[in-house]
Amino acid sequence: MPISAALKSDLDGLSLEENPALVRQKSRDFYWYSPVLKRQLEAVTADAVVTVRSEAEVIRVLAAAFRHGVPVTPRGAGTGNYGQAMPLSGGLILNLAEMNKVTAVKPGVVVAEAGALLSAIDDAARPSGQELRLHPSTYRTASIGGFIAGGSGGVGSIRWGGLRDLGNVLRLRLVTMEAEPRVIELVGDEIQKAAHAYGTTGIITEVEMPLTAACDWVDVLVGFDDFVDAAHFCDGLAKQDGLLTKEIGTVAAPLPHDYFLRHQKFIRRDQSVAILMVAPFAMPALEAFVARHHRASLLYRSDLASDEDRKALPPAYELSWNHTTLRGLRVDPSITYLQVLYPAPDHLARVAEMTAMFGDEVPGHLEFVRFDGAITCFGLPVVRYTTEERLEEIMRLHEAHGCPIFNPHRYTLEEGGMKRSDPVQLAFKREADPKGLLNPGKMIAWEDPDFDFATQRTYLFPGLEETTDATGA
Amino acid sequence: MPISAALKSDLDGLSLEENPALVRQKSRDFYWYSPVLKRQLEAVTADAVVTVRSEAEVIRVLAAAFRHGVPVTPRGAGTGNYGQAMPLSGGLILNLAEMNKVTAVKPGVVVAEAGALLSAIDDAARPSGQELRLHPSTYRTASIGGFIAGGSGGVGSIRWGGLRDLGNVLRLRLVTMEAEPRVIELVGDEIQKAAHAYGTTGIITEVEMPLTAACDWVDVLVGFDDFVDAAHFCDGLAKQDGLLTKEIGTVAAPLPHDYFLRHQKFIRRDQSVAILMVAPFAMPALEAFVARHHRASLLYRSDLASDEDRKALPPAYELSWNHTTLRGLRVDPSITYLQVLYPAPDHLARVAEMTAMFGDEVPGHLEFVRFDGAITCFGLPVVRYTTEERLEEIMRLHEAHGCPIFNPHRYTLEEGGMKRSDPVQLAFKREADPKGLLNPGKMIAWEDPDFDFATQRTYLFPGLEETTDATGA
Repeated sequence: MPISAALKSDLDGLSLEENPALVRQKSRDFYWYSPVLKRQLEAVTADAVVTVRSEAEVIRVLAAAFRHGVPVTPRGAGTGNYGQAMPLSGGLILNLAEMNKVTAVKPGVVVAEAGALLSAIDDAARPSGQELRLHPSTYRTASIGGFIAGGSGGVGSIRWGGLRDLGNVLRLRLVTMEAEPRVIELVGDEIQKAAHAYGTTGIITEVEMPLTAACDWVDVLVGFDDFVDAAHFCDGLAKQDGLLTKEIGTVAAPLPHDYFLRHQKFIRRDQSVAILMVAPFAMPALEAFVARHHRASLLYRSDLASDEDRKALPPAYELSWNHTTLRGLRVDPSITYLQVLYPAPDHLARVAEMTAMFGDEVPGHLEFVRFDGAITCFGLPVVRYTTEERLEEIMRLHEAHGCPIFNPHRYTLEEGGMKRSDPVQLAFKREADPKGLLNPGKMIAWEDPDFDFATQRTYLFPGLEETTDATGA
Repeated sequence: MPISAALKSDLDGLSLEENPALVRQKSRDFYWYSPVLKRQLEAVTADAVVTVRSEAEVIRVLAAAFRHGVPVTPRGAGTGNYGQAMPLSGGLILNLAEMNKVTAVKPGVVVAEAGALLSAIDDAARPSGQELRLHPSTYRTASIGGFIAGGSGGVGSIRWGGLRDLGNVLRLRLVTMEAEPRVIELVGDEIQKAAHAYGTTGIITEVEMPLTAACDWVDVLVGFDDFVDAAHFCDGLAKQDGLLTKEIGTVAAPLPHDYFLRHQKFIRRDQSVAILMVAPFAMPALEAFVARHHRASLLYRSDLASDEDRKALPPAYELSWNHTTLRGLRVDPSITYLQVLYPAPDHLARVAEMTAMFGDEVPGHLEFVRFDGAITCFGLPVVRYTTEERLEEIMRLHEAHGCPIFNPHRYTLEEGGMKRSDPVQLAFKREADPKGLLNPGKMIAWEDPDFDFATQRTYLFPGLEETTDATGA
């Protein structure tokens, strides 16, 4: 549906794209990681994309859209994989990719516009010997605003925990969706009003993030004959408080050999692999740690690699987190994945149990993190997908065995997260988006206050209802 | 006993001090923290002090002392408090205080001579935006070599664990005590041959240490009506993975009021106090964390203090670790202290139990640390000292309730530490000090291989035996 002439006139002078093919392209994220979301969201598209270059332009767009009752879905780089950037009710895509300036680098702190790429922020910070604490595996393509609005952690979480943790986001500046949009600054606990809200509670325009000491990280691969051994190695390494790492993950055989094509020559098909990023000055300590584990063999380290290899190989972080899945999907488009928490202190026992239960139907992928002060691991296991019923069953079996699922096959905040409504975000949305025009359909608590999460029924946003829900709502 | 003319001739050209009063002064450390060590070690003194300015001079001294069979006890700044720098067999004090150059500052790494002061190393590192990870409360007076040879951790251990952890010391260079002293470089696990060995296995001449991002730390005091509440607050704060702190400790009422004289105006006598060092950019997050605890009240923060206060008040780290004890001893010389580990995950229950058991006889002092990947706390509680028997009983009661004691009333490595011999250090001593001339009497495994730690008998080095052992050997 084309946007109205009246709205168009209110947006006069702004960069507006109405070509359906281009609009459709900018209405997409990595939702197709999930066969469920792929089926549900395939037809979703906005009516137009407006690209803003300043906060003043954001304010103009929101005021105009509010006046005309048109939904607005913000977009950074579109690298999310929950459909969080997809405009379920059409309307406008608010493209923030060109609001990408890094405006200040100070000791411990960077200030940037929401559309700044994570790697661009680090490029700006590095001359001062600093870098971001955390980034997703889409470091080179994702925006900081999108990471905060739709991500949870990633590379660096082994040292710093997640984005939800106090101190990992210092300040958010956002614009409300009202007749006269307000600019609000959030610090401390207030940041939770807009962090991981998919843009449903305001449009983030500027962020202030903590920096840590920059490091020329060494990429390391360590091989194991057994996945559970690899998990124990990673856990032990993660508990070495003095051995500085930025990434500790492990992927079960045969995935590393089969999916990490450019690293394949280093990896036997029956090897499970630990993927590490280690401070260069910690490499002798890492060698000592590896030497303590007679089942571990050092397969690759970038600091001793040939120039040729170093140029040809992707960085270790692009083997980790959702990039593991992405590489898998490129090799075998029939797979999908889960997101699992194995709660400390019994996380390794849970991993062993799930590994034994599912075998090669659900090959393991663990990412070690700090979580409430303790070391534990998240899982992003690959699933050799057959049917939605079996996928649901695999998730139910995980939860029945004490491994909570953060369901990546749902497009709502609640179902992909804690499976309950967030009263702080809901209350803030009432203030900041009274007409419910920001990214409609993503917050169940707003759309359907009576929705009962206990039923395990999938929430379907109006307009998507006609799509058969194969899980049986 | 004066040193022989032959040795003196071999040391010709080196800086040699034989004035008994000055030699006695340099034969002392903070052993008098312990009434037991005070009684046992009061008469200890060397025969001469030789001050070296280079590794070549260290080699000359060790070769000469080896030739003449004269013991050598190394000394940094003498700020230890286990008698570790005290020359039980007389002989030479090897004063390394003037070997104090910081020779290189690189990304993540500093190289310094053993006698460099911790604060001087940071002064050299700070222009690059870096600082040491760890330091004792004697930051402004202690040497890096003495910290590694006789310390275990301190300020910064809440983030990085202890000196024993892989990666917290990168390299040690040391000189052996042989006819022709060798220079050995230790990295990785080999560092344990000389770290926390009191100089019994070689003389450390140069160290390479990791650096982290420098910070203009904010000193914060938070008050509580109840010590166990304060402990829970500190534990919760320590588990905030994203909230950057360098120090989290707490001291039970009435000690903060009674001992922290220059901070006294901020503290009620019945208040237990949490002592924190917080990154400036994390202060809004800290405020949010404090606001969650209705029993916590912010007493002092250096970032909002008057210039006058900031100048007059000692830094927070000089209220922490062994400086708490030192301030106590200045106010009340009759007290002493313990060193306790409350093992995770039940550390807070153990703290509550000990607090209830001893009350004001053993007022609590906790220092929160990372230990094998988990948050836990060490205790340095004050003891209102009556007799050695009661002191021993208090320690026995702690151990009987699952709280291991690192006994600060013993001058040997084993009794102050893990209460068992260290086969790696013993084997290395056989190579590096075959005549046993380095800091004699500190390694039981060397002096008395048959000593049975199970008996709980105090080890007494020959020459100190005549002193009555009040604990009943």
